[in-house]
Amino acid sequence: MALLVHKYGGTSVGTAERIQQVARKVAAARANGDQIVVVVSAMSGETNRLVGLAAAISERPIPREMDVLLSTGEQVTIALLSMALHELEVPARSYTGGQVRILTDTAHTKARIQSIDAAQIRGDLDAGRIVIVAGFQGVSEQGDITTLGRGGSDTTAVALAAALNADECQIYTDVDGVYTTDPRVEPKARRMPRITFEEMLEMASLGSKVLQIRAVEFAGKYQVPLRVLSTFEDGPGTLITLEEDSVEQPIISGIAFNRDEAQLTIKGVPDSPGIAAAVLSPIGEANIEVDMIVQNVASDGSTDLTFTVNRPEYERAKELLQQIANTMGAREVLGSVDIVKISVVGVGMRSHANVAGRMFAVLAEEGINIRLISTSEIKISVVVEDKYLELAVRALHRAFDLEASPE
Amino acid sequence: MALLVHKYGGTSVGTAERIQQVARKVAAARANGDQIVVVVSAMSGETNRLVGLAAAISERPIPREMDVLLSTGEQVTIALLSMALHELEVPARSYTGGQVRILTDTAHTKARIQSIDAAQIRGDLDAGRIVIVAGFQGVSEQGDITTLGRGGSDTTAVALAAALNADECQIYTDVDGVYTTDPRVEPKARRMPRITFEEMLEMASLGSKVLQIRAVEFAGKYQVPLRVLSTFEDGPGTLITLEEDSVEQPIISGIAFNRDEAQLTIKGVPDSPGIAAAVLSPIGEANIEVDMIVQNVASDGSTDLTFTVNRPEYERAKELLQQIANTMGAREVLGSVDIVKISVVGVGMRSHANVAGRMFAVLAEEGINIRLISTSEIKISVVVEDKYLELAVRALHRAFDLEASPE
Repeated sequence: MALLVHKYGGTSVGTAERIQQVARKVAAARANGDQIVVVVSAMSGETNRLVGLAAAISERPIPREMDVLLSTGEQVTIALLSMALHELEVPARSYTGGQVRILTDTAHTKARIQSIDAAQIRGDLDAGRIVIVAGFQGVSEQGDITTLGRGGSDTTAVALAAALNADECQIYTDVDGVYTTDPRVEPKARRMPRITFEEMLEMASLGSKVLQIRAVEFAGKYQVPLRVLSTFEDGPGTLITLEEDSVEQPIISGIAFNRDEAQLTIKGVPDSPGIAAAVLSPIGEANIEVDMIVQNVASDGSTDLTFTVNRPEYERAKELLQQIANTMGAREVLGSVDIVKISVVGVGMRSHANVAGRMFAVLAEEGINIRLISTSEIKISVVVEDKYLELAVRALHRAFDLEASPE
Repeated sequence: MALLVHKYGGTSVGTAERIQQVARKVAAARANGDQIVVVVSAMSGETNRLVGLAAAISERPIPREMDVLLSTGEQVTIALLSMALHELEVPARSYTGGQVRILTDTAHTKARIQSIDAAQIRGDLDAGRIVIVAGFQGVSEQGDITTLGRGGSDTTAVALAAALNADECQIYTDVDGVYTTDPRVEPKARRMPRITFEEMLEMASLGSKVLQIRAVEFAGKYQVPLRVLSTFEDGPGTLITLEEDSVEQPIISGIAFNRDEAQLTIKGVPDSPGIAAAVLSPIGEANIEVDMIVQNVASDGSTDLTFTVNRPEYERAKELLQQIANTMGAREVLGSVDIVKISVVGVGMRSHANVAGRMFAVLAEEGINIRLISTSEIKISVVVEDKYLELAVRALHRAFDLEASPE
């Protein structure tokens, strides 16, 4: 008998029929002899409806009340799923975040989980019940309702799996696993049977948005085996595990990309200590998220600094950067929105030399000019002109043997 | 400085604009120097939407989960109203029933309030905040969400007023008070400045559905001054008070009626002890609510028993009654749906003789045949053919001087 945490997102519970489908899936798992805790999101569209109501009343709704409002979305789903399970004559009980004491800090709309009282849930499981928990929400020490921010249901599921020492945390979505790259760009993309937490983090942050980053971090930290699989078709999905679990590691696991970035360069900055901070601190203070940061060695006592931001923030960032440039007497500010970031990701590159060299050679063969390069231990990212996206991804996918099955 | 409990129903908070209007009303009362606790219902239509979702999943949704589902309706409203008050720079804090420990029994979907923890609310009020509480809901000793049944927000408001020893519980609705009769039937109907709890109970149960009966009972029991007034226009409304408060009592306070009943008669029942129970117990066990019950003295060792039920339950009740008649060898079962019940209500009839005689005389003058008569200490009800409704109500309204202002 295994203890499993299932998590179903908004699309999976988007209608009464889909909730009934989820109930059948959960009932089947229980009939299989497993103990099941189910975490659900709000029905798709519901959160937007609630946000719309708040927006009609206040331009900047106060966070405490936003949480009271938004937490109702998941509460509706837990009640309906419990009803659906009872229809199948499967005993079940629903709980809000507050009811199972998912204790968080007081950072309304983006709270972090501090502890979970597993006793109540264990009692229900031992009594043979399915336990259904509202995702995305918790309660503060003071008894106020909190939420974990959008997509936080994944985090709830992982946190529950960790607190219950579950055998697996299964995230059901509308895709059947994590792919070597986006199948819409490369039809030969392949579902990975397994991937490490670190690779998943790099894939997630680079745009393969299957799972919330925080949930993956959490799962890695507490060593909760995480599996991504489809609500709508059967299959093993992708298991996200510790590196040790993998017998044979391919060099590269996948090709990620992000079309939503823009690039900014400040040229001719005096090359002195603290210059990067002087440029980037005001950007950070303006709440503009910076992704890649590249600085090359200086020549002639001055240097250039390039970074990427989310495209919607490009104009604001550029304006700010111009002010900074004026203040520090930099030569000029350049920028471009016609770019795309492409990354190869894989823990295998740790033990294989010259992955970067191969990557750059593949791009050169296709005549693709590289504008920026940035590397980490398990990923190499380049920025290229956006028109080359498909060409680059397909070439890299082929060059790193991602089409063939590794099993 | 007075402590007031305001209650706003679903129509009053039916849109974002109306919630803003309620916020202005509450803010104005606070600016007046009063401490305010606000109880709100779900936005109109919301409860039906939730019931529809449940119905799509289960024909008979389990009550515990129905409460988890329905309680979200009020939770949405408290958050939005708090946001609207903050927009007006009025400090406010919202609470679910569970958060202010509105402790109830475990009778899901129709729970009864057992206690309220007033300490938290007092703390907020003393800090200058408006306190907003979700109506209709509470929490059981076990921590499960419960609801008080439809319209239960009135009960929440009265219970809070009692627990806080409030100066007045003000029920804001879409009418500006309690009328001597339905103005749609008698345009000369007049708003009553005051009415006693007992009269209000008789008026409410007879179809003047301004307030929930249980809320009025509760207010009477705990001597909470209750006032019905309009959300949409200013005015003193109707104060519902103890009898002693009234200086001069008119004989009759109002004319109530109910078109939604049907009449059933079982004829030729053996006149022996326990016969009424033998007829009515199976009806009650089938969850059919019985209103009037009339039995006249027997003749020839047999008797007739007549009672009224809600019209939608007429067919089911008649079928059941036929079975009962067969079992006990009764002569026959008769029934009619073309009836209406009309009642004159007033504590004044306690000290005035022959109100019944005047009522019957008025109906006789209009040529209206009375089918059934039933009386209590402060009300006389008759059942007549439904086509006489308007004629009877207007004649009685005039005869008992309800058109003239008593002030």
